[in-house]
Amino acid sequence: MSQGVSRPTNVVTVEKRPIPEPGQNEVLLQMNAVGICGSDVHYWQHGKLGDFLMRKPMVLGHEGSGTVVKVGAGVQHLKAGDRVAIEPAYPLHNDDFCKSGRYNLSPRMFCCATPPYDGHLCRYYAHNANYCFKLPECVSSEEGAFIEPLSVAIHACRRGRVKLGSKVLICGAGPIGLLNLLVAKATGAAQVVICDLSSSRLEKAKEVGADFTILVTKETPQELAQEVEKVLGCMPDSTIECTGAEFCVHTGIYSTLSGGTVLLVGHGPALVSVPLLNAAIREVDIRGMFRYCNTYPMAIAMLASKKVDVKPLITHRFPLDQAVEAFETTKKRLGIKVMLKCD
Amino acid sequence: MSQGVSRPTNVVTVEKRPIPEPGQNEVLLQMNAVGICGSDVHYWQHGKLGDFLMRKPMVLGHEGSGTVVKVGAGVQHLKAGDRVAIEPAYPLHNDDFCKSGRYNLSPRMFCCATPPYDGHLCRYYAHNANYCFKLPECVSSEEGAFIEPLSVAIHACRRGRVKLGSKVLICGAGPIGLLNLLVAKATGAAQVVICDLSSSRLEKAKEVGADFTILVTKETPQELAQEVEKVLGCMPDSTIECTGAEFCVHTGIYSTLSGGTVLLVGHGPALVSVPLLNAAIREVDIRGMFRYCNTYPMAIAMLASKKVDVKPLITHRFPLDQAVEAFETTKKRLGIKVMLKCD
Amino acid sequence: MSQGVSRPTNVVTVEKRPIPEPGQNEVLLQMNAVGICGSDVHYWQHGKLGDFLMRKPMVLGHEGSGTVVKVGAGVQHLKAGDRVAIEPAYPLHNDDFCKSGRYNLSPRMFCCATPPYDGHLCRYYAHNANYCFKLPECVSSEEGAFIEPLSVAIHACRRGRVKLGSKVLICGAGPIGLLNLLVAKATGAAQVVICDLSSSRLEKAKEVGADFTILVTKETPQELAQEVEKVLGCMPDSTIECTGAEFCVHTGIYSTLSGGTVLLVGHGPALVSVPLLNAAIREVDIRGMFRYCNTYPMAIAMLASKKVDVKPLITHRFPLDQAVEAFETTKKRLGIKVMLKCD
Amino acid sequence: MSQGVSRPTNVVTVEKRPIPEPGQNEVLLQMNAVGICGSDVHYWQHGKLGDFLMRKPMVLGHEGSGTVVKVGAGVQHLKAGDRVAIEPAYPLHNDDFCKSGRYNLSPRMFCCATPPYDGHLCRYYAHNANYCFKLPECVSSEEGAFIEPLSVAIHACRRGRVKLGSKVLICGAGPIGLLNLLVAKATGAAQVVICDLSSSRLEKAKEVGADFTILVTKETPQELAQEVEKVLGCMPDSTIECTGAEFCVHTGIYSTLSGGTVLLVGHGPALVSVPLLNAAIREVDIRGMFRYCNTYPMAIAMLASKKVDVKPLITHRFPLDQAVEAFETTKKRLGIKVMLKCD
Repeated sequence: MSQGVSRPTNVVTVEKRPIPEPGQNEVLLQMNAVGICGSDVHYWQHGKLGDFLMRKPMVLGHEGSGTVVKVGAGVQHLKAGDRVAIEPAYPLHNDDFCKSGRYNLSPRMFCCATPPYDGHLCRYYAHNANYCFKLPECVSSEEGAFIEPLSVAIHACRRGRVKLGSKVLICGAGPIGLLNLLVAKATGAAQVVICDLSSSRLEKAKEVGADFTILVTKETPQELAQEVEKVLGCMPDSTIECTGAEFCVHTGIYSTLSGGTVLLVGHGPALVSVPLLNAAIREVDIRGMFRYCNTYPMAIAMLASKKVDVKPLITHRFPLDQAVEAFETTKKRLGIKVMLKCD
Repeated sequence: MSQGVSRPTNVVTVEKRPIPEPGQNEVLLQMNAVGICGSDVHYWQHGKLGDFLMRKPMVLGHEGSGTVVKVGAGVQHLKAGDRVAIEPAYPLHNDDFCKSGRYNLSPRMFCCATPPYDGHLCRYYAHNANYCFKLPECVSSEEGAFIEPLSVAIHACRRGRVKLGSKVLICGAGPIGLLNLLVAKATGAAQVVICDLSSSRLEKAKEVGADFTILVTKETPQELAQEVEKVLGCMPDSTIECTGAEFCVHTGIYSTLSGGTVLLVGHGPALVSVPLLNAAIREVDIRGMFRYCNTYPMAIAMLASKKVDVKPLITHRFPLDQAVEAFETTKKRLGIKVMLKCD
Repeated sequence: MSQGVSRPTNVVTVEKRPIPEPGQNEVLLQMNAVGICGSDVHYWQHGKLGDFLMRKPMVLGHEGSGTVVKVGAGVQHLKAGDRVAIEPAYPLHNDDFCKSGRYNLSPRMFCCATPPYDGHLCRYYAHNANYCFKLPECVSSEEGAFIEPLSVAIHACRRGRVKLGSKVLICGAGPIGLLNLLVAKATGAAQVVICDLSSSRLEKAKEVGADFTILVTKETPQELAQEVEKVLGCMPDSTIECTGAEFCVHTGIYSTLSGGTVLLVGHGPALVSVPLLNAAIREVDIRGMFRYCNTYPMAIAMLASKKVDVKPLITHRFPLDQAVEAFETTKKRLGIKVMLKCD
Repeated sequence: MSQGVSRPTNVVTVEKRPIPEPGQNEVLLQMNAVGICGSDVHYWQHGKLGDFLMRKPMVLGHEGSGTVVKVGAGVQHLKAGDRVAIEPAYPLHNDDFCKSGRYNLSPRMFCCATPPYDGHLCRYYAHNANYCFKLPECVSSEEGAFIEPLSVAIHACRRGRVKLGSKVLICGAGPIGLLNLLVAKATGAAQVVICDLSSSRLEKAKEVGADFTILVTKETPQELAQEVEKVLGCMPDSTIECTGAEFCVHTGIYSTLSGGTVLLVGHGPALVSVPLLNAAIREVDIRGMFRYCNTYPMAIAMLASKKVDVKPLITHRFPLDQAVEAFETTKKRLGIKVMLKCD
């Protein structure tokens, strides 16, 4: 029997489940490490996220790595003993989005820990082998589990058009903001300024490479934009917005250089007041993103070559048996990334 | 002496002005045709447009063509007798925007009929020769004058990512909406649907090539988006929004296919309510535009090869002496494009 | 029993074969129309093409359309009676090329009439349903069969960066050259000049829309490049090379405007002498292509909206029983496209 | 009087010249540091480079930095005392290449030390202020002089499509190869392998960050391509060819992953034998480059933020008085970059 973390009626419990058999083109994994994401906590607390509504208990977890214990029919590129990172979401049909390289936009996707699908915060888990990526020896299983949030940052920096020499503003110094900082730097950003309401988060940002930090207090978005320009010596080419706050959407638009990009990672309410005219007449593009695509091979290459070091962001570790405590820690926003060890 | 159309205290008058001398790298033009734009009417009626405030009478007109009568020092590519289309706005400094091919975003620009600069709705006018483009014999002076609004549509379709096989929604069937229709079709759009509140405008749209038209009555943006999908048989890849109305911004976002683009041509108020989450999680990019750049050679090539036929959009013609009547006609929104003959 | 056209020992014969059963995610098609391609003739004459060697008789044909007569398990978007165009090549594994939108580059592909796989020049044929595209009523089965070579031209113009206002040189006025002409025009090319050794082919090119034609006689590539510049009034932005001749590769490079693109459709020998320095220091990109990807939906939209009219290129039609005569006609290079009617 | 290094009849001499006056929009600079480039040596030895023929003695030097001592009329962004890096080549006319952001392709350019124009290896030199870029305090004058060759590498990596996670092959470990290594890494390349005939150059490459090096001995291009794949564990996405040797062009094409890019920095003879079919059918783009554009601000940002450290590449320093010795050192290919101190 396997053990999994599910969520019946706002309670996170650890319960026993049968070990699955790998189907055609699947691999059975013994899970190694699983990170806890804010969305896991959200499902736990609210039983839904956006349009996705939990109708029954669900195994949480979608930031995981595991070791192949059995391969299903048709699997050629993996074998028992391989350690892999799991890309948790994949398309169920080979539609035009898939064929043109944007499979994350396909309307019908499987996604770990998104209703009605279970996640992989458990001992044994079977996954589509096409979306399991072998880790080289020099990449640890914890780093492998970190590829999922790292992928968010890679997709954000790519869609945010961060490139060699870019000046970048990041709004929010939580886990996703910090990962964007790491990826922006790895992509060649010359200078990154990061802003947040919390001075302790900003300290962490400094630690992992922020060139500048701004503690937001009572500024208007326009005033904050001026501060950003002042510390950088120019307006940023790209803003990566990681908070979902209307205030930051405004700040991002006012801050960004004409011709630049505001990339929205954070999710706000359905309708937001936006200084659209300011963005439009300065050709500041407003772009969002949905998950990521084609990031895992690149992320593994980056981790293997030490272009990005995510280890300083892992602040807490718990064994799977203490999953409840791990979730409480994440909920209290203590530290940056809480990691569960499943083996 | 030259004659020009200026606007003192909300009055359009025709008055005499001295004929200018062409400076270094300038050409003196005898104006041929000048189209009237909505912004000309706006300056006449309100004395300002956005942040641009008229502080003294201003010659209107920024959609013009003329014949070179004299060339200034340093001009090599033009000579007396050449007919040219005038690109009315150009950068005053060779800054990074210019060097990287986006000169329209330069913060310091000259622009005809934008305070404090006079326009060219007059008999004689001197302009930067680098922004005067020789017309071949097969392109008429009226077509030459039409390149300015055509440039808006070229830049819109380019930034709106219209391409071979695209399905396109255009909001608004005024002059700019119709020009976008022509350019979208010339760029390979497979099908264009255009919506407006006016059935007579939609009839004109049908005439010049719209595959479908939708008369907007009492739909919500979501309902209109469904209608768009129904008539096209799919969601459009690109929406070109030409009205500035919040309703159309919403419609554009709800209508556009995941991964597509909403391009804002129309200008609305400073702050607009936007369904940002819907756009963000479907990776529908929201992009605006400021004037255009690098469109004149392309527009001339298109007119010369008959890829685009703007002549059906010229519905009224007046001699310069009847400029007041021409402006009244434009103000009343009779017809599509009112053209003044200056020669 | 079905009938198919195969090639044992340099002979094209029509023989009986069993009607296949559609597998999982396949559809069984009653073939309607199949065009004959130069590569079919090449396999017939030489038993190989490049590295692809025929080791046994092979059904020819990879430009086809058919009517669904039976759907396999799992097929949702097609039903009996639907007419479809067949995309003949598809990847056998969902690898990184596929995931990133360039499935044509995948090293392991199925392709109709490419050894060891049979083609679909037969009465009944089963194909992967994901690569069968429903034709609307307004697109005929012959047009559907033409989508395959049309796709080559779409991919060529896309990779050749043909766009609104482009000036284009096409080398070779055979079927692929003419299709590139049609697609270049549909994509907004302002002017296309096409060159060939045959004046009758150039006449056809004129008929279907070439702005200029050049009959190549004894010019050097440099002289031909000068002629191209003379007739266009400028150097072309893009050259689409459809012959594979070294002479044309040279001509393409010398002709193309600095910063432009030479796109190689035609295949020459393994090693070619190239004026690489001229291309390099003028930033003229040299790009090739392999088949196409993501073209079928776009091609159907273009045919449906009459953006492209391929009918004038169909010069010969034969029933399947006269396949041998059809092949002889193609081999003699009579006409442009020879179409076989299988129903 | 100023002092300059010129080249009459294959002799490098130091002679006196008058101090120039800065013209309209120019600045007079007291030169600080000037690097010696292979092309300087080539002009010295051969009196020509490609089509550029020296018809009289020429001041050499085009990799320089200086301090503003006087500003001409119209200069606003610089003042006496500012240290600047000099972009040595700029367009003489604001043509379509300039307007669209590729000014390096303009047919009529001024370029330091390219006949008929003098370079800036002298005490005092006047240059177009628009192409002088202020250095921040944290960037030394030597680093400022290094921006010219660094720009070559930035342009190469940009056109070579090096990006986050790229695997890159660099052919040639001379100064330009090493700079490409630095820039590729700064742009996010996960792994770079560099090959050369000289083991001492490869040692230097290891020192400044190459992940792998390959000493080329008697391999065929195909064999070398296999070695590259073996050390990387995959084929590289991009090859940056810095030697101009036909052998390396072949190697680059055989090595590069389908869909990737071979970028030619090195210049070979006019005609080269190329495995064009291999490149074409795998969609490996062959691209060249001419100088660079829009690199200086980005390069300054990179140097300021320590994203790139060029200092280890400066192996020799001479005062201007010992210019002859400096040239001899460069000619003998001792070290990597020889720097002349003019102040």
